[in-house]
Amino acid sequence: MNALRQRLSTLVSLSTFQLLRRTSRRSHQRLFVGGFMLASSGFATLITYANAAAPDDASKVKRKLNVNRFMAEPITDANVLLEDPDNMRHRVELLIMEIQAEFCRSLETEEMNGQKFIVDRWQRKEGGGGITCVLQDGDVFEKAGVNISVVTGWLPPQAVQQMRARGKNLTEGSKLPFFASGVSAVIHPRNPNVPTIHFNYRYFEVETPDGQKQWWFGGGTDLTPYYLDEKDAVHFHKTLKNACDEHDATYYPKFKKWCDEYFRIKHRHECRGIGGIFFDDIDGPNQDACFNFISSCARAVIPSYLPIVQKHKNDDYGNNERQWQLLRRGRYVEFNLIYDRGTKFGLYTPGARYESILMSLPLHARWEYMHEPKEKTRESELLKVLKNPKDWV
Amino acid sequence: MNALRQRLSTLVSLSTFQLLRRTSRRSHQRLFVGGFMLASSGFATLITYANAAAPDDASKVKRKLNVNRFMAEPITDANVLLEDPDNMRHRVELLIMEIQAEFCRSLETEEMNGQKFIVDRWQRKEGGGGITCVLQDGDVFEKAGVNISVVTGWLPPQAVQQMRARGKNLTEGSKLPFFASGVSAVIHPRNPNVPTIHFNYRYFEVETPDGQKQWWFGGGTDLTPYYLDEKDAVHFHKTLKNACDEHDATYYPKFKKWCDEYFRIKHRHECRGIGGIFFDDIDGPNQDACFNFISSCARAVIPSYLPIVQKHKNDDYGNNERQWQLLRRGRYVEFNLIYDRGTKFGLYTPGARYESILMSLPLHARWEYMHEPKEKTRESELLKVLKNPKDWV
Repeated sequence: MNALRQRLSTLVSLSTFQLLRRTSRRSHQRLFVGGFMLASSGFATLITYANAAAPDDASKVKRKLNVNRFMAEPITDANVLLEDPDNMRHRVELLIMEIQAEFCRSLETEEMNGQKFIVDRWQRKEGGGGITCVLQDGDVFEKAGVNISVVTGWLPPQAVQQMRARGKNLTEGSKLPFFASGVSAVIHPRNPNVPTIHFNYRYFEVETPDGQKQWWFGGGTDLTPYYLDEKDAVHFHKTLKNACDEHDATYYPKFKKWCDEYFRIKHRHECRGIGGIFFDDIDGPNQDACFNFISSCARAVIPSYLPIVQKHKNDDYGNNERQWQLLRRGRYVEFNLIYDRGTKFGLYTPGARYESILMSLPLHARWEYMHEPKEKTRESELLKVLKNPKDWV
Repeated sequence: MNALRQRLSTLVSLSTFQLLRRTSRRSHQRLFVGGFMLASSGFATLITYANAAAPDDASKVKRKLNVNRFMAEPITDANVLLEDPDNMRHRVELLIMEIQAEFCRSLETEEMNGQKFIVDRWQRKEGGGGITCVLQDGDVFEKAGVNISVVTGWLPPQAVQQMRARGKNLTEGSKLPFFASGVSAVIHPRNPNVPTIHFNYRYFEVETPDGQKQWWFGGGTDLTPYYLDEKDAVHFHKTLKNACDEHDATYYPKFKKWCDEYFRIKHRHECRGIGGIFFDDIDGPNQDACFNFISSCARAVIPSYLPIVQKHKNDDYGNNERQWQLLRRGRYVEFNLIYDRGTKFGLYTPGARYESILMSLPLHARWEYMHEPKEKTRESELLKVLKNPKDWV
């Protein structure tokens, strides 16, 4: 059904499509168009047609990508993307372009004085490129970065070794051609009552020396509150669980645990936040199923997070809360620069666009020697949960 | 002469010693006591005697360490330190205790409202411990950390591998007993016209499976200005060069270059600061010579830095300068958490006291997406030098 839904969404005429977008922008409801359920969280792929041919004539007409709905021109030539729509590289590129645009626009609507994302489309001389969108110094978002990248190159031996350690069947010491694409975002709001969110969904291909291609998907979404609101935590986890359960009921518990283990600031014996889901090396039961699973997860980001932003963005707070938020942002920096595999992989990749990788860092952070919140405060309550991750659903 | 000077300094009676300290605190001049030149930069080891016996009777009297002059009790029992004064572990411990105390007191005298270092003496259940001194939120120093540690334990195989990669003759995959002691400090002043300084001097021993002991020294001092004052840069480098030249005229040029290479934020293609000296694996011509060399370097810290603090601590500055300082502090964090070998070695060592390792992080830091200073500003002038290290002397 998911695969069908995905393909159908490419068969909508321009006018229907625009109606769908307008309606879905605010409601994130399930929608039925032309008798078929199209998208479970208000998205539809952005392939439209130059003329208003009926959907069943679609294969015969000249197709044109409505790139205006994206944050910038795709990295891959729009015609190439359309020529081979079954190619997983292209399907992923279209998906991440959509996710980026929809998420950025949603965040912009929360800003009170109309702050917008700035958009940088960049190319990598070693192959591929990306689109980095950053909103800095907003009323609601102190720093929000949403990045997509579509890159090809050669995996350095140390990356091959890392992958082998994770069980990949790759030849040691070799330098292998790879393709990687993904969307990733880190949103640091200004109000300490609004949590930071991070998500990343990615697709990876490596070619082995015998010419065989290995592929897999990875990703996750996780929340980093400064103050704990248990209802928010339950809402967030439930939204992710629903997205997982649609595909495999074993996913959420497994990926929730993985998330708690991955986002751990080991030297402090605490988690970065209250988790969410995290997974890697997803390559079964088949490519379609994997794609549909990460699509569902990526589409669950807005409904998991936006209601929390709306609920708290005008909460009162004082200097104490701000200082605590800055300290926790320091911990965020520690995790990202010391442990995060994505940051390391990014920075060690030749020709890395470090500004896009490091956009995840907060505008401000603080480190105090031996800071310990007083007992029975909201700060110490949060720390308890960070030290002992809870099951929320 | 250096070795003699060192040993002589342990033979001073209490009263002479106190006089020496009082005199040297302000002047950092060469001093002659009892007809012998004692210390080239105002230090003397802190071994004194319970009675006022003449120096040549020293070996016959009960000796007592005047621990009041240190920031806390030494990590090794004071009697043990005295029992075997030729033991290099003990000589280094006494040296780093002195360096710590002298440096902390010097910084405190620069504070205008009497802020003092807080002192944490800590023990490590795996063996050894340390003394961490931090001055936070001072008028002159926003965050200053001066740490000593004296630890024993087992080197994990990955550390052994790292050392092998540097040319150490150690068995691969083995877990070897080690001893490490050192002093390290990072001083982040409040005024953006005063640079940050870092130094670290350390001694290392590893035992190989055949029972043989390998030892070496490492260290360095480097400066990270927010605005470039060429005269300060020359003064700083010249002071370090003089300390090096006393021992080997080839040291300064070699270790200056090593410093520029080591403190490089590779992904940004720039250095952290304007360098200084950096070296590792110093194990020749003999242990005494190595010890004397690192003693000279460590004793050059105050004369290299304090005059710069005094010159600029009351300079005017505004919000622009403060914001630039915070951005550069973000770069400092990037280097320390991504590249610094000491931080990594520290955090990965079981039972690491992470608060002592991370005291090097500034109180505040800032990350702006794509920040680029305007051309022909003081900020862009600094960047030029960070991208292309200069020879200052």
